[in-house]
Amino acid sequence: MQMPEPDQAAIAARPRLLEGLRRIVPADSVIADDASLGAFESDGLTAYRQRPLATVLPETVDQVAAILKLCQDLGIKVVPRGAGTSLSGGALPLADGLLLGMAKFNRVLDIDLENRCAVVQPGVTNLGVTQAVQDLGYYYAPDPSSQIACTIGGNVAENSGGVHCLKYGLTTNNILGVELVLMTGEVLRLGGRHLDAGGLDLMGLVCGSEGLLGVITEVTVRILPKPQSQAALLLAFDAVEAAGACVARVIGAGIVPAGMEMMDRPAIHAAEDFVHAGYPRDAEALLIVELDGPEEEVAESIAEVEAIARTCGATSARVSGSEEERLAFWAGRKAAFPAVGRISPDYYCMDGTIPRARLSEVLTRMNEMSARYGLRVANVFHAGDGNLHPLILYDANAPGELERAEAFGAEILTLCVEVGGVLTGEHGVGVEKRDLMGTMFDAGDLAHQERMKCAFDPDHRLNPGKMFPELHRCAELGRMHIHRGQMPFPDIPRF
Amino acid sequence: MQMPEPDQAAIAARPRLLEGLRRIVPADSVIADDASLGAFESDGLTAYRQRPLATVLPETVDQVAAILKLCQDLGIKVVPRGAGTSLSGGALPLADGLLLGMAKFNRVLDIDLENRCAVVQPGVTNLGVTQAVQDLGYYYAPDPSSQIACTIGGNVAENSGGVHCLKYGLTTNNILGVELVLMTGEVLRLGGRHLDAGGLDLMGLVCGSEGLLGVITEVTVRILPKPQSQAALLLAFDAVEAAGACVARVIGAGIVPAGMEMMDRPAIHAAEDFVHAGYPRDAEALLIVELDGPEEEVAESIAEVEAIARTCGATSARVSGSEEERLAFWAGRKAAFPAVGRISPDYYCMDGTIPRARLSEVLTRMNEMSARYGLRVANVFHAGDGNLHPLILYDANAPGELERAEAFGAEILTLCVEVGGVLTGEHGVGVEKRDLMGTMFDAGDLAHQERMKCAFDPDHRLNPGKMFPELHRCAELGRMHIHRGQMPFPDIPRF
Repeated sequence: MQMPEPDQAAIAARPRLLEGLRRIVPADSVIADDASLGAFESDGLTAYRQRPLATVLPETVDQVAAILKLCQDLGIKVVPRGAGTSLSGGALPLADGLLLGMAKFNRVLDIDLENRCAVVQPGVTNLGVTQAVQDLGYYYAPDPSSQIACTIGGNVAENSGGVHCLKYGLTTNNILGVELVLMTGEVLRLGGRHLDAGGLDLMGLVCGSEGLLGVITEVTVRILPKPQSQAALLLAFDAVEAAGACVARVIGAGIVPAGMEMMDRPAIHAAEDFVHAGYPRDAEALLIVELDGPEEEVAESIAEVEAIARTCGATSARVSGSEEERLAFWAGRKAAFPAVGRISPDYYCMDGTIPRARLSEVLTRMNEMSARYGLRVANVFHAGDGNLHPLILYDANAPGELERAEAFGAEILTLCVEVGGVLTGEHGVGVEKRDLMGTMFDAGDLAHQERMKCAFDPDHRLNPGKMFPELHRCAELGRMHIHRGQMPFPDIPRF
Repeated sequence: MQMPEPDQAAIAARPRLLEGLRRIVPADSVIADDASLGAFESDGLTAYRQRPLATVLPETVDQVAAILKLCQDLGIKVVPRGAGTSLSGGALPLADGLLLGMAKFNRVLDIDLENRCAVVQPGVTNLGVTQAVQDLGYYYAPDPSSQIACTIGGNVAENSGGVHCLKYGLTTNNILGVELVLMTGEVLRLGGRHLDAGGLDLMGLVCGSEGLLGVITEVTVRILPKPQSQAALLLAFDAVEAAGACVARVIGAGIVPAGMEMMDRPAIHAAEDFVHAGYPRDAEALLIVELDGPEEEVAESIAEVEAIARTCGATSARVSGSEEERLAFWAGRKAAFPAVGRISPDYYCMDGTIPRARLSEVLTRMNEMSARYGLRVANVFHAGDGNLHPLILYDANAPGELERAEAFGAEILTLCVEVGGVLTGEHGVGVEKRDLMGTMFDAGDLAHQERMKCAFDPDHRLNPGKMFPELHRCAELGRMHIHRGQMPFPDIPRF
């Protein structure tokens, strides 16, 4: 993973940047000493580290606007950061850029039950939204594993998912409005508390744009009534292919589980050794299927899923008989990542998504790759969504293993694309998958996307080096606008 | 409503256009005689009529690509058309443009239950998708009133809604992938059969883009299992404000009806006179609330909604005791538009959307306007979504009435925006609301949207004159790309 050469002019402008920032925010909101900057040098993808020119922590929209305008004037890049839990390096600082931390935007501004929404600042945590409305009988549906820490602003930037997105959708399906500030300091308000607006859907475009288009300063989220009841089913299989087939059959039968998660043998053992959830150690694959809704519906669906699982060769099926047991089923799944961390010095978490019907085939081919690369892989993932999270186990201190793990990961993602899937389900592209974008999009596709970026941020000041494998001067992409009367597309350089 | 002056060069190029088209498609797929072109001169917004240069009816993607490239080369504009049911004039032809009819793209290409989707051509009707999967126990959720006729391609272009969008979302929430052809002939495939892809969300941007970005040639839609049971509740109120308050209270109580429709006294009377649905003639407002799901859940929710309605002053409440009775409740609602057509020589159907909590207030103010303009208004609308469809009753033969109806409509939409709503819920902007875009978006917002248009269609060949109140040369919008080193936004002309 290579980042562009730092811009020496930007580095030279650091004193003017610091002076400008201190005119906009209180002095203690500007972090410039090297030791303190260490706290911001990486996000959830800790393999990559870089200290920024400085970190600033504004607390009003006006301050954000003034900071961006200052950076635009000084020619300094900006990396926005929520809680820094990105697994794709989305908040990785730039050596020649300012890190703009949104941690102080942590207030819930309004709870509006009649319009079934809440208006929150971007630094409110994902779980914080649910906590703000749960006593009223509501919750916020998307639930990334990092939900205790990750923020709504980051969720919008990455279009985050979670276990319950199978039934309730990703972030993009659960927001109504956003406010964002452009590099010029201009404040855009998109959407609101209403149905889809007229005109081109800029809010949809902003969701999942990974901090490349603007800095989000307010989000209006949909909230949902809490389900009347929940139950989970723990299904064991003696082959991952059988579990994969079961997932597709359940979906194909018209059942909509609230979540449907898969763990393979290495993940089961790691979790069981760690939290003693009572998982069957002899299983090759485990499915946790959660149903929610009225009790009668849940009971009926659980029986249906169990019957399908039997036809797919499930070797055991347990239904949670109480809320405690349901939570126990989930305990192992929720502890799976740290559990894998106990059995391997390092692991690399992938995030490919495939059409559900191809699950079995992809799992089989991943096992073949594992043998070929000589690296173990543990699978813990959102099977119902077709969203894989293979954890590649390696030892960063063993020479060549990191590189082998990266090559293995790239081959997995390439396979995902090959079967009709995509590079990412919920972690974003960031720096991690940036150089693989070419496996999924051709030069024309990427130029199209980059032209959107240019329309928001023509000087590539916001989070450059993320998402796009190469950055082009917007004037190149815009050449078609200049030579009118000629065919525009053949005129676009084919990179 | 003014359209730009026709381009004489394009009109002069008509013989070359016809000759080129006949090389691409069979001769009987090119419609050029004036009488036959009459069939295409307007869409669902029949107040506006215009014959195109010609109509072409391709049946393959290659043909669409060749036609667009031909028009790009000849400098001829193109208006795509599905079934022509647009209520905003989205498919209104241009005097200097080709009408590209997609009626022959009428095949269901694949039904894929394991990935819970169907792949269809854009000319398949909305109802046709449900018909293709209903024997398997599935359906397609968005259900515009025109669903017998309107096509999926048009639904994507307008981001169409319907009664059930309250619970199941608009078109944008129910599609997974689209294929579209750009003016250059380039074919873009966006999304697929999987979760949200990485990179910028161009599919989200295309949905609702009203034929301005590309011509849709394939759509992958989500399909849903049919609900186990359905029941409806007919609630009468002696004031529209009480009915409006009831809507907000039901939503605020955490209930998610499958649909929640409102009719006011003029609409009730018109419908009752027409289809004898058994509606109470003494009511000032009627709510039809539909619940779906397992029987027990539906029964419980119906009781809850009824209790809330009583506290809001409902004067009567009837629960459908059978499927026949449920359909009878809907019969009046479904016939409401033609029923209003019986009591007035002409009517004008509006489509504003407001935050639900402002319903009562907006209905009251609309009645005040009705008195002031001296024009009756009948309301039949998706109350649960806050999506209003006021029908303004007028007589086109009475001098000045059309103009008064248009002014009344504009005032309603301006009020919608004023209370935090938007100009359109599901009919699109088209030519109808084009000149009102300025009440909702400022010059900067519109320039932002138009820059997206420029990135897809820099020469404004696709459906120009729709959505944007004014068209700018893309080079003007792109000026910021050329003068680098300067602040980009102040450089954008403020129109």
